[in-house]
Amino acid sequence: MAGNTFGTLFKLTTFGESHGEAIGGIVDGCPAGLKIDVSLIQLALDRRKPGQSRITTQRKEEDTVEFLSGIFEGKTTGSPIGFVIKNNNQKTTDYEHIKDKFRPSHADFTYHQKYGIRDYRGGGRSSARETASRVVGGAIAQQILTLQNIKINAFVSQVGNIKLIKNYSELDLEKTYLHPTRCPDDTISNVMFDYIDKIRKEGDTVGGKISCVIANLPVGLGEPVFDRFEADLAKAMLSINATKGFEIGDGFDSMLLKGSEHNDEFYVVKNKVKTKSNHSGGVQGGITNGEDVFFNVAFKPVATIMKPQQTVNSNFEEVIIEGKGRHDPCVLPRAVAIVEAMTALVVIDHLLRNKLSKL
Amino acid sequence: MAGNTFGTLFKLTTFGESHGEAIGGIVDGCPAGLKIDVSLIQLALDRRKPGQSRITTQRKEEDTVEFLSGIFEGKTTGSPIGFVIKNNNQKTTDYEHIKDKFRPSHADFTYHQKYGIRDYRGGGRSSARETASRVVGGAIAQQILTLQNIKINAFVSQVGNIKLIKNYSELDLEKTYLHPTRCPDDTISNVMFDYIDKIRKEGDTVGGKISCVIANLPVGLGEPVFDRFEADLAKAMLSINATKGFEIGDGFDSMLLKGSEHNDEFYVVKNKVKTKSNHSGGVQGGITNGEDVFFNVAFKPVATIMKPQQTVNSNFEEVIIEGKGRHDPCVLPRAVAIVEAMTALVVIDHLLRNKLSKL
Amino acid sequence: MAGNTFGTLFKLTTFGESHGEAIGGIVDGCPAGLKIDVSLIQLALDRRKPGQSRITTQRKEEDTVEFLSGIFEGKTTGSPIGFVIKNNNQKTTDYEHIKDKFRPSHADFTYHQKYGIRDYRGGGRSSARETASRVVGGAIAQQILTLQNIKINAFVSQVGNIKLIKNYSELDLEKTYLHPTRCPDDTISNVMFDYIDKIRKEGDTVGGKISCVIANLPVGLGEPVFDRFEADLAKAMLSINATKGFEIGDGFDSMLLKGSEHNDEFYVVKNKVKTKSNHSGGVQGGITNGEDVFFNVAFKPVATIMKPQQTVNSNFEEVIIEGKGRHDPCVLPRAVAIVEAMTALVVIDHLLRNKLSKL
Amino acid sequence: MAGNTFGTLFKLTTFGESHGEAIGGIVDGCPAGLKIDVSLIQLALDRRKPGQSRITTQRKEEDTVEFLSGIFEGKTTGSPIGFVIKNNNQKTTDYEHIKDKFRPSHADFTYHQKYGIRDYRGGGRSSARETASRVVGGAIAQQILTLQNIKINAFVSQVGNIKLIKNYSELDLEKTYLHPTRCPDDTISNVMFDYIDKIRKEGDTVGGKISCVIANLPVGLGEPVFDRFEADLAKAMLSINATKGFEIGDGFDSMLLKGSEHNDEFYVVKNKVKTKSNHSGGVQGGITNGEDVFFNVAFKPVATIMKPQQTVNSNFEEVIIEGKGRHDPCVLPRAVAIVEAMTALVVIDHLLRNKLSKL
Repeated sequence: MAGNTFGTLFKLTTFGESHGEAIGGIVDGCPAGLKIDVSLIQLALDRRKPGQSRITTQRKEEDTVEFLSGIFEGKTTGSPIGFVIKNNNQKTTDYEHIKDKFRPSHADFTYHQKYGIRDYRGGGRSSARETASRVVGGAIAQQILTLQNIKINAFVSQVGNIKLIKNYSELDLEKTYLHPTRCPDDTISNVMFDYIDKIRKEGDTVGGKISCVIANLPVGLGEPVFDRFEADLAKAMLSINATKGFEIGDGFDSMLLKGSEHNDEFYVVKNKVKTKSNHSGGVQGGITNGEDVFFNVAFKPVATIMKPQQTVNSNFEEVIIEGKGRHDPCVLPRAVAIVEAMTALVVIDHLLRNKLSKL
Repeated sequence: MAGNTFGTLFKLTTFGESHGEAIGGIVDGCPAGLKIDVSLIQLALDRRKPGQSRITTQRKEEDTVEFLSGIFEGKTTGSPIGFVIKNNNQKTTDYEHIKDKFRPSHADFTYHQKYGIRDYRGGGRSSARETASRVVGGAIAQQILTLQNIKINAFVSQVGNIKLIKNYSELDLEKTYLHPTRCPDDTISNVMFDYIDKIRKEGDTVGGKISCVIANLPVGLGEPVFDRFEADLAKAMLSINATKGFEIGDGFDSMLLKGSEHNDEFYVVKNKVKTKSNHSGGVQGGITNGEDVFFNVAFKPVATIMKPQQTVNSNFEEVIIEGKGRHDPCVLPRAVAIVEAMTALVVIDHLLRNKLSKL
Repeated sequence: MAGNTFGTLFKLTTFGESHGEAIGGIVDGCPAGLKIDVSLIQLALDRRKPGQSRITTQRKEEDTVEFLSGIFEGKTTGSPIGFVIKNNNQKTTDYEHIKDKFRPSHADFTYHQKYGIRDYRGGGRSSARETASRVVGGAIAQQILTLQNIKINAFVSQVGNIKLIKNYSELDLEKTYLHPTRCPDDTISNVMFDYIDKIRKEGDTVGGKISCVIANLPVGLGEPVFDRFEADLAKAMLSINATKGFEIGDGFDSMLLKGSEHNDEFYVVKNKVKTKSNHSGGVQGGITNGEDVFFNVAFKPVATIMKPQQTVNSNFEEVIIEGKGRHDPCVLPRAVAIVEAMTALVVIDHLLRNKLSKL
Repeated sequence: MAGNTFGTLFKLTTFGESHGEAIGGIVDGCPAGLKIDVSLIQLALDRRKPGQSRITTQRKEEDTVEFLSGIFEGKTTGSPIGFVIKNNNQKTTDYEHIKDKFRPSHADFTYHQKYGIRDYRGGGRSSARETASRVVGGAIAQQILTLQNIKINAFVSQVGNIKLIKNYSELDLEKTYLHPTRCPDDTISNVMFDYIDKIRKEGDTVGGKISCVIANLPVGLGEPVFDRFEADLAKAMLSINATKGFEIGDGFDSMLLKGSEHNDEFYVVKNKVKTKSNHSGGVQGGITNGEDVFFNVAFKPVATIMKPQQTVNSNFEEVIIEGKGRHDPCVLPRAVAIVEAMTALVVIDHLLRNKLSKL
């Protein structure tokens, strides 16, 4: 059973390889009657696209989405929304040198072994280019969330060992996209920028952490016992290229507190139940409790480096591989839009699922 | 759409509340012809059951599994395997005091709001008692994995700020269950034990970290692009009660290395492709590469403490709640068996899925 | 991927073999807050159980359902509803003679080949006994449908070549269960009864047709393009043991009319859109139009006959098999409750699905 | 939960409206390494396309399929296969007259009520044009079936009351597509042709029956208890536009035989188990037994007629609607390719599912 569909009620299925004709997808399950603002979808895509500053890859991919179905006179019809993004800037020759070689820490070897065949051009299906389709799906979902005032804000909170210290409540998350690093703190952002640029000049790469806040969520999202809200978030995040970890609320640090310190005591304000602290990160028993959901995602450094590495070819002989082409020294600035998109897909799916909880 | 089923081909659906008649489940999709050793399933259950030492809850739950279908003359028949575990040691009166109160950082409030009704006895469906059914499903899966020599070993690697320093390769993971803490290092285990016992006497609780290694996996498990092996592991782990984080390979620390340091270079030994390092934790492009899969899971401290806490009742009035009953000061020793079970369910599902990759 | 789950949002998973410990199932996705009248569920089971008259099998199966979870203080909680029906009247020795023989037109041969192992006792999983679990699931669904005034009435409309001539609108469908044949027409019912009794004495069996009407359905049930309302009904019916055909509205006779005769013209009454005729059987474009849904299901004669037949054993040798045991000469009277149950499962699933159509 | 995906392991998701930019779909789950002959896929599409003779609609739709992904150097890669078929011959003005009117026995009313919005152009999503995407999916599936020598042959066996009398074994099914009627019997085909042409001149329409044979199936396809082979076939057939019935083997006629007449006795030939008769139509207990699977599908007359009809508009006022445009007097000749495609999708899905039955 292949795994190219995300979601249970609001379902995104994507297709497409880095250097094929086009990438794209189908959103099935979007309720009818939603006004679609295509410019907002294109904006989300633009936030992910390469070439936005000198610290992202200089490949030019215009990434223009075309909708083929499911929208009529500006509104969704309840029919599946098919869309494509043409691949215009394919330089297949860039990849001839990896045709028979497995790049270290890339998917070349595992795809080759799993499928017995591999579209090696630009990583083929394993390329992060596929995530552009997720951004389209997420941006559609986001338009429903906006109607309910739900806000999703991701931002870069760490690059290498450069960390954002401030809590998200002290930051202006609306300004994240004004920073090329997507870190919404002027000082830290500048340090990150310079560091990424230095790494780029070395021909090396670096990873980091993206944090994300979901505000104004209703109480009740999440489906016990397996499809907990945070379980589906974790899956969504770990399905993004280069991610290696996920934590919600206090996450790995929660073990440093005792129960009496970590528990979030309830109180009442204006007939609404709130918690005094939010160590839980907005979920209890797998269900949102109305507080902000807050989580972090770890990204490893990009595998493609501009340095020679030892590896193996498809004849299982040891060879040297040289780094070539136009690549990102740090994927995080572009990945912020992807984290937001996947988050939106999780939220919309659980909003629809929760409609069915009570009689 | 409710969420009580885990897996796509090897599917476990569980039912049951803490203080109802019974808990249990159905395993659908187990291939026919598998010899079932019920004693091994019972052993896994025993490793999870309470009352094994003074640092776990003193509730007596015998947790005896009864199989109702799907096994004939000792072998699976391809029909669904139905099973029940009776609830014998129900003290419903223990819970009268929480009938109308929402325990902090428990699921009481969120279940109440989501469903409009709540089986408050012992947490009802949100109780970790449900995980006994997962242990049964996982122990069935494990019997197929054993035929393929695949080994899953989880162990406690941190409690509060007491950390296991040694790498898993330096430990004898076969001895994990000999330690009441499930930490396979004599010295650290003793420190952990004393610490948990101290916390218990305080009426408080503590969290920690469980690490898990899967050895001898074939290359090729994982289904791009959404159902990556690590994405499904992350979901499985975050679906366990009290978990707050997941990381694979170097996880959150991977951002401290540059690409040139983090990449796992390939080499060949005896016509097999291996990697020199394993920062990736055994997955690349969402697919296992044949190296050990290694991951960590963060657990928050248990929410039930023996101390008074401020909270809210179902009339949305602020009240004080007192801790009562028999509870775990630290859930980790019992959760090791659950982590192993959920891991086994992920592996078996992907083994079956991978059977379909090639013509 | 095994197939023991029916439905997408209101999901019934069944387990159990004819002569195992118990049969049962899990209903997942039942909304919370539904008052459960267990006596109505037991009534539906009683309508399916054997031994109700001399034209059904004289096996005594009490078929008492026990609920294990998901119901608290008489109401559903949103948690999965687990239930069992114990197998009390197992005479395994009745089946020793078929242990190694494949009964003609039974599932013995196909199960044996598919799974390589077979629980031969009473047909094991392939026994129609499994449908008792469906009746439980359907009876739960029915309690939601009743709140919306939706009525499902199935009845026997043909046995052998004895046909009910009257249209359903001329019959009192509330009296169906007063007739041992489940044909709600005194005269035809008596003829059918005598015919089935005659067939029984011959040691032979006979098939027939069950018709079903769903009244008071809302407009809008059915999910284009694959999960049309009638497509899911067809699947539901063909999933019942011994069924060989399904038709809706005019069905196979619709080809005898021209378009100008078959089309159902719309008109308006009390601001409601109605159709003058109902050749379509209440569905257009795969979606209910508010008219009665009407369909027929064909049942072949029961495969177990009290006569010697030529067959093959598991060594692939030709042998003679003798009919033994207590069997139904005609399955239709008992199958009416099963058709109603499966219909209720289709309707409830589509009611829930339709909740998601519009924003 | 929307319903635009067919299949569980080999999954086809379609999108597209009659008069939108394009229709298309994604095949997910096609095993890697399959040689794709695009000309055979185009041939299947051509067999479905309009304008092939004067008894089908004279609309010109070239229906050229373009593959966007999932195929590399002529072979499937295991990645999802995205494809589009552009809509070139859209005459939207043809449909202005139905913009606000509900055509009798069409999906206009039900879509309008279900979704609150309707792409009225050419029926939008409810148009049979969508089935072109199914033909593409089915033709891909067929290429795997061909490797296993499995043959699917559908043909028109009845139009109005003109019936094909001969059994399929007496017909040359390879010649079906040489007849404009798709009835592989010269004499009957001619009578059908003249009758359809007469009906066309009357401005009326007519329905009929398509029969289908699947030869060389292995024993073992079908997943008890709900996903029986015939249940999935029934669903597939009833998901096709204008279908009203399905029967397998003797179908509705099986009730005219006694068990002793209907049972298919087993015998052995060349160490293979065969049945003397095939009343069951190749399935027993929901699983294929190795005999030919044979089934019939009923089609109602096309709803669009060239005659005035009474109906209702979207203001719920009674109005007259006139037939306009280029339509099929009889959909059956074009539907043969669709029946074959849906059959191929059912077979491939069950072939893959059956790979998982045994250890």
